[in-house]
Amino acid sequence: MRAVDIIIKKRDKQELTAQEIEFFVRGFTNGEIPDYQASAFAMAIMLNGMTPFETTDLTLAMAKSGQVLDLSKIVDIAVDKHSSGGVGDKTSISVMPMVAACGLPVGKMSGRGLGFSGGTLDKLESIPGYRVDLSTDEFKKQLKEKGIVLTGQSMDLAPADGKMYALRDVTGTVPSLPLIASSIMSKKIAAGAQAIVLDVKTGLGAFMQTLDEARELADLMVDIGRLAGRRTVALLSDMNQPLGAAVGNALETIEAIDMLHGGSPADFREHCLHVAAHVLVVGQRAKDLNEARSMAEKSIADGSALEKLRVLVAAQGGDVSYVDDVSKFERAKYVEVVHAPRNGFISQVHARSVGEASVALGAGRAKKGDPIDYAVGFLILKKVGDKAQEGEPLFEIHANDRAKLAEARAAVLSAHQIRDEFVPPLPLFYE
Amino acid sequence: MRAVDIIIKKRDKQELTAQEIEFFVRGFTNGEIPDYQASAFAMAIMLNGMTPFETTDLTLAMAKSGQVLDLSKIVDIAVDKHSSGGVGDKTSISVMPMVAACGLPVGKMSGRGLGFSGGTLDKLESIPGYRVDLSTDEFKKQLKEKGIVLTGQSMDLAPADGKMYALRDVTGTVPSLPLIASSIMSKKIAAGAQAIVLDVKTGLGAFMQTLDEARELADLMVDIGRLAGRRTVALLSDMNQPLGAAVGNALETIEAIDMLHGGSPADFREHCLHVAAHVLVVGQRAKDLNEARSMAEKSIADGSALEKLRVLVAAQGGDVSYVDDVSKFERAKYVEVVHAPRNGFISQVHARSVGEASVALGAGRAKKGDPIDYAVGFLILKKVGDKAQEGEPLFEIHANDRAKLAEARAAVLSAHQIRDEFVPPLPLFYE
Repeated sequence: MRAVDIIIKKRDKQELTAQEIEFFVRGFTNGEIPDYQASAFAMAIMLNGMTPFETTDLTLAMAKSGQVLDLSKIVDIAVDKHSSGGVGDKTSISVMPMVAACGLPVGKMSGRGLGFSGGTLDKLESIPGYRVDLSTDEFKKQLKEKGIVLTGQSMDLAPADGKMYALRDVTGTVPSLPLIASSIMSKKIAAGAQAIVLDVKTGLGAFMQTLDEARELADLMVDIGRLAGRRTVALLSDMNQPLGAAVGNALETIEAIDMLHGGSPADFREHCLHVAAHVLVVGQRAKDLNEARSMAEKSIADGSALEKLRVLVAAQGGDVSYVDDVSKFERAKYVEVVHAPRNGFISQVHARSVGEASVALGAGRAKKGDPIDYAVGFLILKKVGDKAQEGEPLFEIHANDRAKLAEARAAVLSAHQIRDEFVPPLPLFYE
Repeated sequence: MRAVDIIIKKRDKQELTAQEIEFFVRGFTNGEIPDYQASAFAMAIMLNGMTPFETTDLTLAMAKSGQVLDLSKIVDIAVDKHSSGGVGDKTSISVMPMVAACGLPVGKMSGRGLGFSGGTLDKLESIPGYRVDLSTDEFKKQLKEKGIVLTGQSMDLAPADGKMYALRDVTGTVPSLPLIASSIMSKKIAAGAQAIVLDVKTGLGAFMQTLDEARELADLMVDIGRLAGRRTVALLSDMNQPLGAAVGNALETIEAIDMLHGGSPADFREHCLHVAAHVLVVGQRAKDLNEARSMAEKSIADGSALEKLRVLVAAQGGDVSYVDDVSKFERAKYVEVVHAPRNGFISQVHARSVGEASVALGAGRAKKGDPIDYAVGFLILKKVGDKAQEGEPLFEIHANDRAKLAEARAAVLSAHQIRDEFVPPLPLFYE
């Protein structure tokens, strides 16, 4: 078998066999197939596509390119939840304790933020002491003993995917559905997932800007899950405006904790309950969504979810007192409330613009490895569909620098659109 | 400007500007743009195509990636002739002396054979002493003083093309018309050509197997020539069967010399006169093809073309006595005449199979740098359309090894098809 013949086959729109895909991924991982062949292959896939069978073979080959975590001796069903990324998405911090409290052990490896969308690890690190660098053994031990883990990728999961992603980024081959889907699913499978809930975002602040694109990606990932023998459910959720109110690391963690205290904005609360219910169903802890939802609600009402969060934070070295008293979180030097400039209905809070403004404040990284400021960010006080009176609070800016505060004010104000006519609220979920 | 944005633009089927193409070619040549970006770019061009404007910009950028020869102080019009390669194509060795004898100075840089198709340099080296490694200064001096040069590429013409070709070969991006056309034309322009005659081969022994593909390539190269301000003519000639009778280095050189002595097979003679006439017209030595053809015929009849060949061989250190007495050429140890197995009409002499059999005898290289055997090869005695009687000579094998001779006999026999019904001869030129 020769790499060039596999490239030519895809170039000529023929379907590749599992053997051919495995040969290519293995060769690329161990360096026998050079980057210049992999990038030509990626471009051929980008332009000619892949069938769900090929995409599944690619996913499995990438998953097997490194260590594959086996959690079968620790949990009945290893469940995972993945969000395609967005602005204000702190869902995992609330949902994982909820489902763990309902008796479904969950161990999740999260990522850091890059670009305008945040990452769960950065948010959790706003709790002093919280470790996100558990070893594989620590991961397994904690999952077994505490039933909950939320950490970074300690081992080299799906190394072919990491190598491929770096190459795609500089060769114009990022927006290919088969490559996106196999990248996401290969990491989930390598992390040992047997059941997966995918939260695919769509809208102005999502990678998939249209519902059709998001649905296509979601369908493809569900196909891969089915063909690879993983119970997989995909939700399509809105990312035209930020999720909940908080954008920024500490602010989002506070909101996620508030949710478990019974507080937090209604949209975020509803989003979490919906996701948690799906996780409980694929994890076979509930027979249907109604039962699952009741269980999730009960875990908040009876404090068991909050208790699970305490267990999680303590197990990973974090200061548990922050969970009970969110006023302990580091606050930004300047907090400014920006008021509605006129009467009307909010018709847009451009998620991507808010995300970018938050990065500019210091909440995110311009490039990998940059330090971040946990305290800065925004609270979005009015959402699409809300009525605003001139002078009413519209959003809060949390900043540590006056010049940046002024820039952020202008940017987030122009991310808002207010219209005279009634505007219906955005749906939380499309499907 | 960033390389990745140029790749993305081509990926999305947008037309690139001259500046973008120049930026990419310059960066690729000096190593700032890595191979993995160039191969993704090549695949995007391969699958999405290029307009004639883009292809011309690519051609000029590659031509300018190294030294560009300026022959304007030496000749009125620098003419060049290019063949897309085939089996038995020794045309340059006959045509260059003919046009030089007609008063049109010609300096040509040729290539070596690779794969099943031969190269002019290898053929010329069957004349003892003949040098194909003239320096640029020697090239210019000889062109000025003798009016004829036929050598290898001494300088690094169009280095971007060389680098790109090596990459295309291993990334499945060889059969792209814009990339093929720009590769050929960039070298001609870098070699200083102001007027170009392209002999595009089509058929079983050509890169372009169908007439449509060959015509498309020819049209594109003529477009590039026009847009780049070079007078360009393209001929479409047959390469289903070998050209002339001889296949193999010394055998072909002998046939080319015979042609200037007034001999050689009719098809090869006609091919040379046609090509020479077009070179004389684009070189403005004749007002039309009729006049040009008469001049070319006269150059043979009066011995002036043969004299020009003597001048060429002497100037480049070759033994001139070989031109006057072709029996001096090294002969193979074994010469076997293979006879027609039955009565009928020749319907096929598969050019590629004959070319491959000739390489197997030692006349060509399996890979770059392999030594070659000048004496071995074939004389194809019956061509498509000829009537063969059982037992009549069909072809001759010239070999230096008995085992290889037997293999060659089987291969070339099976390259022949003989039918009972009348078969018309193949045309020499399609357009």
